[in-house]
Amino acid sequence: MKFYSRKWVKPEDLNPNGSLFGGQLLSWIDEESVIFTICQLGQGRHLVTKFMSEINFVSSARLGDVIEMGVEFTASGRTSVTLRAEVRNKITKQTIISIDRIVFVNLDEEGRPAPHGLQWPVNDANDSKD
Amino acid sequence: MKFYSRKWVKPEDLNPNGSLFGGQLLSWIDEESVIFTICQLGQGRHLVTKFMSEINFVSSARLGDVIEMGVEFTASGRTSVTLRAEVRNKITKQTIISIDRIVFVNLDEEGRPAPHGLQWPVNDANDSKD
Amino acid sequence: MKFYSRKWVKPEDLNPNGSLFGGQLLSWIDEESVIFTICQLGQGRHLVTKFMSEINFVSSARLGDVIEMGVEFTASGRTSVTLRAEVRNKITKQTIISIDRIVFVNLDEEGRPAPHGLQWPVNDANDSKD
Amino acid sequence: MKFYSRKWVKPEDLNPNGSLFGGQLLSWIDEESVIFTICQLGQGRHLVTKFMSEINFVSSARLGDVIEMGVEFTASGRTSVTLRAEVRNKITKQTIISIDRIVFVNLDEEGRPAPHGLQWPVNDANDSKD
Amino acid sequence: MKFYSRKWVKPEDLNPNGSLFGGQLLSWIDEESVIFTICQLGQGRHLVTKFMSEINFVSSARLGDVIEMGVEFTASGRTSVTLRAEVRNKITKQTIISIDRIVFVNLDEEGRPAPHGLQWPVNDANDSKD
Amino acid sequence: MKFYSRKWVKPEDLNPNGSLFGGQLLSWIDEESVIFTICQLGQGRHLVTKFMSEINFVSSARLGDVIEMGVEFTASGRTSVTLRAEVRNKITKQTIISIDRIVFVNLDEEGRPAPHGLQWPVNDANDSKD
Repeated sequence: MKFYSRKWVKPEDLNPNGSLFGGQLLSWIDEESVIFTICQLGQGRHLVTKFMSEINFVSSARLGDVIEMGVEFTASGRTSVTLRAEVRNKITKQTIISIDRIVFVNLDEEGRPAPHGLQWPVNDANDSKD
Repeated sequence: MKFYSRKWVKPEDLNPNGSLFGGQLLSWIDEESVIFTICQLGQGRHLVTKFMSEINFVSSARLGDVIEMGVEFTASGRTSVTLRAEVRNKITKQTIISIDRIVFVNLDEEGRPAPHGLQWPVNDANDSKD
Repeated sequence: MKFYSRKWVKPEDLNPNGSLFGGQLLSWIDEESVIFTICQLGQGRHLVTKFMSEINFVSSARLGDVIEMGVEFTASGRTSVTLRAEVRNKITKQTIISIDRIVFVNLDEEGRPAPHGLQWPVNDANDSKD
Repeated sequence: MKFYSRKWVKPEDLNPNGSLFGGQLLSWIDEESVIFTICQLGQGRHLVTKFMSEINFVSSARLGDVIEMGVEFTASGRTSVTLRAEVRNKITKQTIISIDRIVFVNLDEEGRPAPHGLQWPVNDANDSKD
Repeated sequence: MKFYSRKWVKPEDLNPNGSLFGGQLLSWIDEESVIFTICQLGQGRHLVTKFMSEINFVSSARLGDVIEMGVEFTASGRTSVTLRAEVRNKITKQTIISIDRIVFVNLDEEGRPAPHGLQWPVNDANDSKD
Repeated sequence: MKFYSRKWVKPEDLNPNGSLFGGQLLSWIDEESVIFTICQLGQGRHLVTKFMSEINFVSSARLGDVIEMGVEFTASGRTSVTLRAEVRNKITKQTIISIDRIVFVNLDEEGRPAPHGLQWPVNDANDSKD
């Protein structure tokens, strides 16, 4: 698994107890998973989150922490793709949450499931160098 | 199950496809679940989300929709409580997502699990009239 | 009066003095009042806030407080409805602000006041159970 | 009355009907009023909004509009100050909302009303040139 | 140079070190510069930021500070305008950042540079009194 | 140069013309640059943006675009580090903005420049695999 997007935990991301708000964390991992899928399937897709398997909140993050998000494909159907995601502290490598399966469905213009055309196994279109 | 907090889906809550961003939805249900638990356990608690069971995204919401969030206790341990949550369209009653189990752990000041003292079965301290 | 939506006061809601920012509070009560009215009149309405009577800021809220918002209809014209709103601490029941009259006007597609068709007295379409 | 702060109405400021969300507008005018008062009383003050007189929503604003906010002192007590505020379209000068009286109270470190020491009439400490 | 828009530094504007987040500051000055230009050229323009000269971060701002933003025209081309911008503490007048040249280009409906028709020298259409 | 963090352009990131708001873009690149530097210098550092060289806005981004941010070290002083940053469309590789030099200064607890101890040349501590 490779880790791309990173976040710097700022005051606006905290819950009243002073640790990273769980809802913010879930929001970040959902966005990163969509981005990962768009990178593989191509821009202009209409993707919807269909399913998330159970989520373990292993540890928390605090103000000023840098966290990174890792996503990888684990399966592909005709109209859906399945990903595994993990968020961890960038410096200590401590896992914050992991989600075994996040399923996205590819929709056509009428909002019905449509074949996404992704070849399996996939080459990593997420990796970027200049 | 009773439904308390409601949201009006505004442009800032949308994904680029024009439907409610899944991450925003997860963020709202996490906050409502914490609030529900605080109402039962009392203010000043340090609660952390420990676990969420699998999440089915049954339908979506669109700009201008009013959605409502329902939460109820389903189990109580010595230091944890378990809730069931559902988000649905306020007008059509169509389910948007449901989560069977969300587990919060009550922490003491050093961040260790601590007894929460909640009696079971509980009276609904969330209901409010004037 | 019944209380529906609740908020958990987070760092992003505070003013520099560490109490709930008044502008955030006004924003929340405006949204809850619109939601209340949509629940009664039906989705797809174009409602505009026309008037708010004077606002007393009775007490404040602090980080971690749970607050709840109550709204009720007090009058109905042909194209307008009038509501009373109150925000209070969910645990202590202490009033934070109350507003005697908030008036919304129902507009047609050209933006002109249009009859809303609400029968008076109204049944509470805001209450939700499952 | 002089107009200082301006806002550019962006997608994040809209309600689902595509016009400026009333709650956002109230939040902006509350912030500008606090700023105006801090400029006159000096930094480091603990000011709380105590009262707003009735609010007329005269017209609305749309995406891309530039609006400006005007505030002026109208009275001064021993521990409080009273302001008048108006928001209008910067280009057309059309009034959006006006509020006759916004009252702020100056608090000491224990949160009790304290003399603010403002001389009346006041010189405009808000005006800034370089 | 005249200073119009002001900001009150709130918890949501801070970086984890407790001072004003630089990205927030850059976002504010970009918006104020667009607003300044719209005030001069008229509403409904499609303006894009084309260039910013080097930025010196002279000092920082802290929670509760009031800062003000000053912008002035320094040059005008056929399709572009050039501004100078400065942000400073409203009370102490200490400079926070200054940017010598911000260039906006006026676009037509196809997104191509188009003459903006601004006369030089310009009268200050930003100043507002009632 | 390697590209790490990605963003999905959502409605809340747009200016009224429907393209990515320049201020939001500057805010993202500032955060990514701080994160890059923290990854190299270690957590708990107090870093301040001191300088940005001129910024060319080469192209824009639109709703639904995925953009990625690349940062690399180009020089190191005793208390400062210098980075080069580029933002581009993840799919088309088109450059959006590039900044030749962003300078951060490492501060001690009193806010004075302090040696950061970074060895030159540096190994890339930003790259993460599992």
